[in-house]
Amino acid sequence: MRIGLFTALFPALSLDEVIGKIKPLGIETLEFGTGNYPGDPHLKLDWLRAPAKIREFRQKLDDEGITISALSCHGNALHPNRALARAHAETSRKTVLMAEKLGVKTVIDFSGCPGDSDRARYPNWSPAPWPPDFPQLLEWQWEKKALPYWKKHARFARDHGVHFAVEMHPGCLVYNPETLLRLRGEAGATVGCNFDPSHLFWQGIDPSSAVRALGAAIFHVHAKDTRIYQANSRVNGVLDTKPYSDERRRSFLFRTVGYGHGREFWTDLVSTLQLVGYNGTLSIEHEDSLMSSDEGLVKAARFLNEIVIREKLKAMWWA
Amino acid sequence: MRIGLFTALFPALSLDEVIGKIKPLGIETLEFGTGNYPGDPHLKLDWLRAPAKIREFRQKLDDEGITISALSCHGNALHPNRALARAHAETSRKTVLMAEKLGVKTVIDFSGCPGDSDRARYPNWSPAPWPPDFPQLLEWQWEKKALPYWKKHARFARDHGVHFAVEMHPGCLVYNPETLLRLRGEAGATVGCNFDPSHLFWQGIDPSSAVRALGAAIFHVHAKDTRIYQANSRVNGVLDTKPYSDERRRSFLFRTVGYGHGREFWTDLVSTLQLVGYNGTLSIEHEDSLMSSDEGLVKAARFLNEIVIREKLKAMWWA
Amino acid sequence: MRIGLFTALFPALSLDEVIGKIKPLGIETLEFGTGNYPGDPHLKLDWLRAPAKIREFRQKLDDEGITISALSCHGNALHPNRALARAHAETSRKTVLMAEKLGVKTVIDFSGCPGDSDRARYPNWSPAPWPPDFPQLLEWQWEKKALPYWKKHARFARDHGVHFAVEMHPGCLVYNPETLLRLRGEAGATVGCNFDPSHLFWQGIDPSSAVRALGAAIFHVHAKDTRIYQANSRVNGVLDTKPYSDERRRSFLFRTVGYGHGREFWTDLVSTLQLVGYNGTLSIEHEDSLMSSDEGLVKAARFLNEIVIREKLKAMWWA
Amino acid sequence: MRIGLFTALFPALSLDEVIGKIKPLGIETLEFGTGNYPGDPHLKLDWLRAPAKIREFRQKLDDEGITISALSCHGNALHPNRALARAHAETSRKTVLMAEKLGVKTVIDFSGCPGDSDRARYPNWSPAPWPPDFPQLLEWQWEKKALPYWKKHARFARDHGVHFAVEMHPGCLVYNPETLLRLRGEAGATVGCNFDPSHLFWQGIDPSSAVRALGAAIFHVHAKDTRIYQANSRVNGVLDTKPYSDERRRSFLFRTVGYGHGREFWTDLVSTLQLVGYNGTLSIEHEDSLMSSDEGLVKAARFLNEIVIREKLKAMWWA
Amino acid sequence: MRIGLFTALFPALSLDEVIGKIKPLGIETLEFGTGNYPGDPHLKLDWLRAPAKIREFRQKLDDEGITISALSCHGNALHPNRALARAHAETSRKTVLMAEKLGVKTVIDFSGCPGDSDRARYPNWSPAPWPPDFPQLLEWQWEKKALPYWKKHARFARDHGVHFAVEMHPGCLVYNPETLLRLRGEAGATVGCNFDPSHLFWQGIDPSSAVRALGAAIFHVHAKDTRIYQANSRVNGVLDTKPYSDERRRSFLFRTVGYGHGREFWTDLVSTLQLVGYNGTLSIEHEDSLMSSDEGLVKAARFLNEIVIREKLKAMWWA
Amino acid sequence: MRIGLFTALFPALSLDEVIGKIKPLGIETLEFGTGNYPGDPHLKLDWLRAPAKIREFRQKLDDEGITISALSCHGNALHPNRALARAHAETSRKTVLMAEKLGVKTVIDFSGCPGDSDRARYPNWSPAPWPPDFPQLLEWQWEKKALPYWKKHARFARDHGVHFAVEMHPGCLVYNPETLLRLRGEAGATVGCNFDPSHLFWQGIDPSSAVRALGAAIFHVHAKDTRIYQANSRVNGVLDTKPYSDERRRSFLFRTVGYGHGREFWTDLVSTLQLVGYNGTLSIEHEDSLMSSDEGLVKAARFLNEIVIREKLKAMWWA
Repeated sequence: MRIGLFTALFPALSLDEVIGKIKPLGIETLEFGTGNYPGDPHLKLDWLRAPAKIREFRQKLDDEGITISALSCHGNALHPNRALARAHAETSRKTVLMAEKLGVKTVIDFSGCPGDSDRARYPNWSPAPWPPDFPQLLEWQWEKKALPYWKKHARFARDHGVHFAVEMHPGCLVYNPETLLRLRGEAGATVGCNFDPSHLFWQGIDPSSAVRALGAAIFHVHAKDTRIYQANSRVNGVLDTKPYSDERRRSFLFRTVGYGHGREFWTDLVSTLQLVGYNGTLSIEHEDSLMSSDEGLVKAARFLNEIVIREKLKAMWWA
Repeated sequence: MRIGLFTALFPALSLDEVIGKIKPLGIETLEFGTGNYPGDPHLKLDWLRAPAKIREFRQKLDDEGITISALSCHGNALHPNRALARAHAETSRKTVLMAEKLGVKTVIDFSGCPGDSDRARYPNWSPAPWPPDFPQLLEWQWEKKALPYWKKHARFARDHGVHFAVEMHPGCLVYNPETLLRLRGEAGATVGCNFDPSHLFWQGIDPSSAVRALGAAIFHVHAKDTRIYQANSRVNGVLDTKPYSDERRRSFLFRTVGYGHGREFWTDLVSTLQLVGYNGTLSIEHEDSLMSSDEGLVKAARFLNEIVIREKLKAMWWA
Repeated sequence: MRIGLFTALFPALSLDEVIGKIKPLGIETLEFGTGNYPGDPHLKLDWLRAPAKIREFRQKLDDEGITISALSCHGNALHPNRALARAHAETSRKTVLMAEKLGVKTVIDFSGCPGDSDRARYPNWSPAPWPPDFPQLLEWQWEKKALPYWKKHARFARDHGVHFAVEMHPGCLVYNPETLLRLRGEAGATVGCNFDPSHLFWQGIDPSSAVRALGAAIFHVHAKDTRIYQANSRVNGVLDTKPYSDERRRSFLFRTVGYGHGREFWTDLVSTLQLVGYNGTLSIEHEDSLMSSDEGLVKAARFLNEIVIREKLKAMWWA
Repeated sequence: MRIGLFTALFPALSLDEVIGKIKPLGIETLEFGTGNYPGDPHLKLDWLRAPAKIREFRQKLDDEGITISALSCHGNALHPNRALARAHAETSRKTVLMAEKLGVKTVIDFSGCPGDSDRARYPNWSPAPWPPDFPQLLEWQWEKKALPYWKKHARFARDHGVHFAVEMHPGCLVYNPETLLRLRGEAGATVGCNFDPSHLFWQGIDPSSAVRALGAAIFHVHAKDTRIYQANSRVNGVLDTKPYSDERRRSFLFRTVGYGHGREFWTDLVSTLQLVGYNGTLSIEHEDSLMSSDEGLVKAARFLNEIVIREKLKAMWWA
Repeated sequence: MRIGLFTALFPALSLDEVIGKIKPLGIETLEFGTGNYPGDPHLKLDWLRAPAKIREFRQKLDDEGITISALSCHGNALHPNRALARAHAETSRKTVLMAEKLGVKTVIDFSGCPGDSDRARYPNWSPAPWPPDFPQLLEWQWEKKALPYWKKHARFARDHGVHFAVEMHPGCLVYNPETLLRLRGEAGATVGCNFDPSHLFWQGIDPSSAVRALGAAIFHVHAKDTRIYQANSRVNGVLDTKPYSDERRRSFLFRTVGYGHGREFWTDLVSTLQLVGYNGTLSIEHEDSLMSSDEGLVKAARFLNEIVIREKLKAMWWA
Repeated sequence: MRIGLFTALFPALSLDEVIGKIKPLGIETLEFGTGNYPGDPHLKLDWLRAPAKIREFRQKLDDEGITISALSCHGNALHPNRALARAHAETSRKTVLMAEKLGVKTVIDFSGCPGDSDRARYPNWSPAPWPPDFPQLLEWQWEKKALPYWKKHARFARDHGVHFAVEMHPGCLVYNPETLLRLRGEAGATVGCNFDPSHLFWQGIDPSSAVRALGAAIFHVHAKDTRIYQANSRVNGVLDTKPYSDERRRSFLFRTVGYGHGREFWTDLVSTLQLVGYNGTLSIEHEDSLMSSDEGLVKAARFLNEIVIREKLKAMWWA
């Protein structure tokens, strides 16, 4: 395993400045946004028509000894707003092409969330088994919207030697291992997951148990934490729609790794990833409103350096 | 406090048969469905035009020494399907009138859940703070749909001497204390809650903490339990859309009281209700697929008889 | 073991009425107050000068098949108010004589709490190791006040064939096993304890561990429970001086057995008492402000009947 | 499910006396020992040669409306002492024949434990993966001893319409679900388990998780409990070889159901059995040295009556 | 937030030596004792009459880039020994003047603890709601002693531009958030608290919950830890009057930060302080008998440097 | 306390290379294997006949400022294979002599495990109290095999100024504090323990409680961790005989310190060792199959440097 950074954290910095920041922190690999929700501060899909730019970008990283762990274009290609859906899908397609050009294996995206019909205005993510409206709608969303799109999209990626790491995220059809494995079961092994524990904790998921269930379906990992504030969740539960800025009243906040869960959790997560054979990147994503970006990055990198397992033992001498 | 039964459990039995069942079980009060989701097996809103029937119904209960704890018409008056919405609202209005006629103080309903716009097909219940689609939609649902309806509807109830116990339920706008108190804050003290812990556990709510937060807003209580099956929830979390019949794979199931949480939980819940001044009914609702209805009723009634607190102490002699 | 009742619960009832109440509840033995804090509603120390009254009292109980588990005169014979101290000590002495007359083995009392000097106005119970004021004072209280009194008082009891069950109680010098065993170590084996778990929980004591530590020093047991309300104790801790009537804000309340801790706790406590050889009485003391006295008595008796162990196995056949 | 009793508890009572005891306790079925460790106080294998006795025995039970849940002959047919091994195997064979005669489906036995070779004196049960002595020996025990015996023995049972419920028990090769499923995998579906949670708790097994893993392999259930005494196990762990009579120092003791684990545990265990489709017997086995046999039987029966689930729901009306 | 040191830890070192120690440890600010319990090794109140000395002291710190987080004079101005009370009050007054001179905002003190009357010899801190002696006395202590003193004393501080951080401490009237907020409610917002979690843990307080309750009343924070030793507290509880040197038998010991509670606790405490807007000092106080002073200082400083949050995020880009 | 390394971790490295590795890691002392299970890569017992080699070895370490914490020859001198037993015993004897020569106080060994008789083939470690085979055998093993050997062997060690640190290990007669103290009770205070928590966790032992029970019997400590994988142990318990390489299915794995239990556990263990007066070595033993040896060594050393307590406080100034 190695430690990376999702550069969306520093939209205002140049790539050189980002590299300058990570070098002293033991960070060896970068994840770049290419549009949609994360934006594209350091890598432009336009460059697909300007191969020299891509080569230059690649060269700079090679010169610095930095690899690319993934390209990220989290979007909602199933959005009922067709223009938006089309744009997000297009970005995702182009990201596949860019990944191919850069020799990057992994593209990260959301599964997306459709509306309630073709005339809907908003995505409809209603995770309840009753009243029967919800399961009916859900089947329509999967069968008519998600599966057709993803079967085709996954094929496209496979044809270009790239695989999709879908991030399990509330508000999307794929939000837990079961829904991820359903998509993978239908769209094929080109679809796996970007494992970001921060969206799992508050669902009551034990991330290490999820890692065991997902096994080889884990393509990439986000190092991001969440703290559940029981002072609030005891009363109002974990289904919290209040803005992230309402810090004192929210039931959970995204936190820097090590501030939502301690060393014991993270050593176990890293070890369980090792156990199922994952030896890719832990890519730092910082969305902690209680700490500045710079401080968060340093804290996360130091913490991960302390606990990351870089090499598996070759052979046991004691048994 | 006293123990009651929501008769929707026995749609195929006559009222006499229901009374025959509850008499030996220490159940002293009944909650009747009047339509919408619970159905109306024992009390028909049609009787509003046949007052003699109402008197007869009332008389039979009086003769048996049985009171009515509440009338229930859980529906979705905000459903994007207008015909359905109108029918549900109409049932709710008539239930208010029936309650007035029967001298019943409490009508139980859901808050309802609108779609994503006036042209929606399904309710849209998307409890996530991001992407921004969701909070935008949520404000529209509250401001344009829920509040206008409930302000008017609450006024109507108040005019007829009745109050609304809204059941906090996933899939509805009001699903936890915070959303209940928002509705109550806007629609007035005629709106309180039907406290059914079975929808709270899996949200990560501690029901006794919720009782302290709700205090005088608790108008009625459902005695129904939920068990979270960590064998499944550890991997897939609590947002479970699979059908209730998929027992082995589901993350939670509704259970008979005492089968989801033990005596220690229920004595504390009953005591905390006592602490905040609630001295109404614990109305048994049975939706436990692992146990027959008759067995569930007997188990629930015995369990509640063991732990219910019927009278508060008048004065402390020891302090 | 058998189940008893401390009759101080029913000061307004006659002995006959008390007997009428307990008969259907499986209660076989009574604990009587003889003055000081518990009062003396059913047994008067004056009768020491009217032996016929004592015989009559004894006869009535014998006729009903009811035994006496203990006489109780919880007081503060070390109070800095000398008149009060003298009166409490005198009641305690007479209770010993009454116990002898009635053939009762056990007298229950507090250890008492002195002031800070001979000119003090109030007892001084300052359970802190610093500043040095406190340990200095504590040594004076033990050496100059408690030990002289108890050595003499214990001798007096022994001479009359009676032993003292000192209740470990905050506000007294003896409030936990360590202080109880110190007193017993100095005053001799005539001094043991009345084990009332309700004063131990909030000190952070695990009553079963305390039972193992006390072993043969347990002479009598009070069946009384306490619930710690973490909604309050998380913020303000367990050192709560607010009146018991301030129910919503207090960190702990006394509760009927089974309402502070569940079946699992009480079966273990009873089993651990069995393990260390205790086979005396579990005497119900009701001080639960959330439940009427009658309801509390019935609930406690039913609960204890369910879990009490009356007989130890004679011989193991399986090992 | 129904409640039964393993009559080995009352070796000194006649069958009539046993029946007299269970009738008022809601116990409807009996498990009989036929020799080996449990003894054969009420049913003699000799009767195989006296069919009239068997008919008479059967008739008496039928007249009383009592069924037989299982015949039990826990032994060690793999014991290195060949005479003993042969006798235990022979008893097991005859028990199969007796079960066939009585129309009983289930015979309960241990898997047995061989020695370390054919010249051993004692069984060797060494549950450690290192030093390599232990895994080597274990393979020999399974391959050369256990599997040949059980393949043949299971075939014999199948030929007689009987199946084996092997009790997972420390000191035997089969002591946890993994070893049970290994035996079942090799010897076929005629071999399942007698699920006795009392041997699982202290191994760190969660019985409900074990039930999910075993599923249809559960043929019979013992209602017996264990309490782990952390006062001792914190220091010395759960591998406790001290005699069961050394109650104060042991790390665990067998206990009456409800005295090792509370209502919350047992309702969940019973519900999980229901979940996997088990609807057989909960057979009370009493080995609780802290309580007399009669008291233990009554306590266990009352407790199980409170929580047993007798019927599954036919159809869900609410979903 | 920043990391500081309470220099009372090194009474034998000169200020220069102290500065030499802290420089390599990332400690940027100092808290100085000015007398009473902490002593005054580095800053003398006498210097109030020698302004040059004060200027020199200030200058040295400025030159080193070190700030002063607070002046500390923990005492008992309510002590029944009038001479002592007067001396402590006088030290506190002069500390206010010194703080004004040095431009330091915060003076730390105890609330103090009176005796039981004007003729008492020892402070009387009896945190029990019964017998009625205790609440009666408590009211006298607050109304007649504490409030008059603190209203006047707080006014004096306010007049000099200084505020009081009262340390919640057992043995004082103010020992938990409730009592702190009572004092603040009466004496005004000039009185807040010096938040030292080491006195809260064993009271059963969750420090983060206390931080939420205190909010803006937190003026200063001590970085000191406590470990509760359940091996002892399970039996004897947390009310432990044995000397701190009786390490093996005590129920709790003061510990270096990170040795009483782990990283998970401290990251949460620091984050919750951030959440309520505290951005002052975490001042290391070492009273850990298991570790030398130098080792404790280094360990505490390293640990705090790892987890302290120095800057809050300016703006969220992700929501 | 100080940090050491058991050099068996690096059998392929020369002593110089080992020293080169530990120097930058704050490791100051080494434990050397002398044969039996650990092997003897760096120190040969043959050198007993070549004193110059011993002097040279000693000199090299002295020159580097490195001490020897212990010599280790974990074996099974009670093995039923007599040749093997004799060889292991002989190695142990020679290790005593070598320790004497090197001025090393501590020799580490196992207690050993006999077979079931003098004709046994394998050790028999059957930690179960029933059937009676097991306790019978156990007494024979202790009385006839272990005690005679150890009484003599301990005397030999004492005569040479060396003491034995017996490692509590499953598969040996001494596997927990109780069995260790039995051996020490019989063989005398020359026998103490090498405290390796990795063998205790899965037995359900709390290592800090074990440290309190063992006190002065702790002669040496191994810094090695274990993680219990509840995903597996919930179903199959902790008695796991599967090979250590079956990582995904095993109930526990040995882990690098800090990867089985977190900082909170290890600070408490180190503090409790300090509490009972242990101030020797924490000797790193690496058997973590999820991490390479080099990575494990670095992680363990960094972690221990963070938490080890090197010096006890001389005097408390605050109490």
